Amino acid sequence: MSEIIVSTPVHNRLEQLFLKHNLSKKTVVLFDENTKELFGRDILTALKNQGFTFVELVVPARETSKSFRTAYRLYGNLIEADVDRSWNLLAVGGGVVGDLGGYIAASYYRGIPIVQLPTTLLAMTDSSIGGKVAINHPLGKNLIGFFHMPELVLIDPSYLKSLPEREVYAGMAEVVKYGFIADMEFLRYIEKHFDDIVAIKDPYVSEAVRKSASIKADIVEQDFKEQSGLRATLNFGHTFAHGFEKLADYRHIRHGEAVAVGMICALHLSRKLEKISQDELQRGLAILSKFKFRRGLVQKRFKDIPAETILESMLSDKKKVDKQLRYVLLEGLGKAYLHPEPLDDGIVIEAIEKAKKCC
Amino acid sequence: MSEIIVSTPVHNRLEQLFLKHNLSKKTVVLFDENTKELFGRDILTALKNQGFTFVELVVPARETSKSFRTAYRLYGNLIEADVDRSWNLLAVGGGVVGDLGGYIAASYYRGIPIVQLPTTLLAMTDSSIGGKVAINHPLGKNLIGFFHMPELVLIDPSYLKSLPEREVYAGMAEVVKYGFIADMEFLRYIEKHFDDIVAIKDPYVSEAVRKSASIKADIVEQDFKEQSGLRATLNFGHTFAHGFEKLADYRHIRHGEAVAVGMICALHLSRKLEKISQDELQRGLAILSKFKFRRGLVQKRFKDIPAETILESMLSDKKKVDKQLRYVLLEGLGKAYLHPEPLDDGIVIEAIEKAKKCC
Ligand SMILES: NC(=O)c1ccc[n+]([C@@H]2O[C@H](COP(=O)([O-])OP(=O)(O)OC[C@H]3O[C@@H](n4cnc5c(N)ncnc54)[C@H](O)[C@@H]3O)[C@@H](O)[C@H]2O)c1
Ligand SMILES: NC(=O)c1ccc[n+]([C@@H]2O[C@H](COP(=O)([O-])OP(=O)(O)OC[C@H]3O[C@@H](n4cnc5c(N)ncnc54)[C@H](O)[C@@H]3O)[C@@H](O)[C@H]2O)c1
Ligand SMILES: [Zn+2]
Ligand SMILES: [Zn+2]
Repeated sequence: MSEIIVSTPVHNRLEQLFLKHNLSKKTVVLFDENTKELFGRDILTALKNQGFTFVELVVPARETSKSFRTAYRLYGNLIEADVDRSWNLLAVGGGVVGDLGGYIAASYYRGIPIVQLPTTLLAMTDSSIGGKVAINHPLGKNLIGFFHMPELVLIDPSYLKSLPEREVYAGMAEVVKYGFIADMEFLRYIEKHFDDIVAIKDPYVSEAVRKSASIKADIVEQDFKEQSGLRATLNFGHTFAHGFEKLADYRHIRHGEAVAVGMICALHLSRKLEKISQDELQRGLAILSKFKFRRGLVQKRFKDIPAETILESMLSDKKKVDKQLRYVLLEGLGKAYLHPEPLDDGIVIEAIEKAKKCC
Repeated sequence: MSEIIVSTPVHNRLEQLFLKHNLSKKTVVLFDENTKELFGRDILTALKNQGFTFVELVVPARETSKSFRTAYRLYGNLIEADVDRSWNLLAVGGGVVGDLGGYIAASYYRGIPIVQLPTTLLAMTDSSIGGKVAINHPLGKNLIGFFHMPELVLIDPSYLKSLPEREVYAGMAEVVKYGFIADMEFLRYIEKHFDDIVAIKDPYVSEAVRKSASIKADIVEQDFKEQSGLRATLNFGHTFAHGFEKLADYRHIRHGEAVAVGMICALHLSRKLEKISQDELQRGLAILSKFKFRRGLVQKRFKDIPAETILESMLSDKKKVDKQLRYVLLEGLGKAYLHPEPLDDGIVIEAIEKAKKCC
């Protein structure tokens, strides 16, 4: 499994860490336009000072960069720059850069090593960890991809200082998710320090990032190939979220925003099946009520859509097995499980209705 | 590792073999236009009779089908046909279909199982085995790809009856290669039954296919990730071959034709370094002299190109490490090794000159 380093400033340690992991000092650095602007100078200067040979690639800062067209262009750049299998790739950015970089690294010359240097809260706590990499197809998100484990994940929480508030909250949804699915003590920490974390104050944000990353890494390590159902618990709230996202055509709504609303539904569903108590439900909802965007766009949209429409959209999602949806539920705060049987549409619709009311 | 089945007619056993390997009976069948025409009816009827659900895909029968454009179209077809991760893919064809099918299977939904049903001599003995899959980039052949082991390789030598003679000889070059690199007894068998094998007569052709496939599978199993140098011996003759192929822009010349000429060079080089005796050289050259195409296009082309130009083209090949070429040589017939040091250009050029004279 990959080593995860949380350190500030992490770019000063690139040479040391690459050597330790037997990575060559020839690296392709992939940025998006924003991360190039924000961190390009620091990172490229560090690489230069530490004796690296590097090639720099920059893609537009948007989801559509996770495309064949972009991959194709980048392959061409790499071939022209004489990059061969003795190189590796360093992805500096959010989930878009991480997923695209991972896709390229997995497939160039049948695979070169990748080092992830995530710069969004979502990427630090989720997308950079676990080796899932993908690009999109016009007919479906993340459909084309692989498992390609990063050799190293380099996390510098100070990079979050420039992150727009909306992106912070989007990432925070995944942080809260880790508390819900795996760690009551961490959930308590989040309850207590929510405001400091979203304000990117230390030690709170570093602690939250470190803990989230380690929960995800543990789960992935135990169930890398998604066989036992454990890795599936990472999808808590996500079955609902994918339904909304699809309805919104993946625009105007951040993944984390959809996940926060999805977790409200999943909490209600867990309660309906009497897997959590009324108190646990209330406590879970209270945490999710701190998500500012709930007062905004997502919430309004969500309220406007009939529960049946949402369920229909969920059914067209790819995580179904033979047209049956599987749900991740809580059996108490801090403990998720993959519900073994499919559920009746009726009970799911009721949970969505409840969620709409309490939003 | 994959199980390799040699059986006639193999399509009667699809259900039994899929079940044995825990493969679902939902399969995407990939053909090229020729294999569809030749074997489509038998195979699809067999699938129907054996209770499979299937989706059929057909690509043009040419190297350019190993492209992004084709992959992109096929992904779209699969998504539209509601193919999900519970399916698998059955590739029916030569190396083009096998490589493209493997590429699609490796990347669709982060990987679905692939079953190879090779229909050319080259595919039965080489490309369908070992899990290397790839598509081409305009700037380089096979540059974009992965390791994706087939669950099963289903070989029916009777499928070779319709194979054009030129394709038979192209595949035969790899068959002879296995004798040279790994098995003196097999080399003797080939010497004795060469004409029967290329005439697709049994038991000779089945025996040659079975033996070749098993030599390749053994080597791959022992050195899957190309670390020990053993898998590299499969490239005997190939460093030279890639040089010619590149000069011909990969057109008008079959890979196997280039490999046959490449092995003549490699034999001379082995002799120059005194790794084989004069007798062994002559015996090796005698086998290669049976390749009909040597009297044709490839030989003429080869004779016309200065040795220096060939070497230059070889140096631009991807198998170089830091611009140094590594050579696979024989130390006796039936035993190849990866020469540990780079060689002087002079000695390589002399070997090419000798090969040109004896062609
Ligand atoms: N591979 C996985 O396991 C996994 C998991 C979850 C999500 N994802 C993928 O991740 C993607 C979303 O990732 P994301 O939310 O990080 O989005 P993103 O990569 O688009 O980043 C969001 C925005 O923040 C900018 N940015 C990045 N770092 C910054 C910083 N430090 N300061 C200021 N701005 C910064 C980016 O340029 C971009 O405009 C989606 O494509 C999703 O499919 C993958
Ligand atoms: N993955 C690997 O390890 C590996 C190894 C070697 C070569 N390759 C790749 O394999 C490809 C070449 O494979 P190939 O030589 O099989 O070529 P191919 O797939 O193009 O097949 C050659 C021709 O024979 C036709 N054909 C196939 N089966 C037939 C049959 N039974 N009867 C009549 N016609 C038939 C095809 O339609 C095609 O026109 C190249 O792209 C090469 O890069 C891959
Ligand atoms: Zn998520
Ligand atoms: Zn070959």
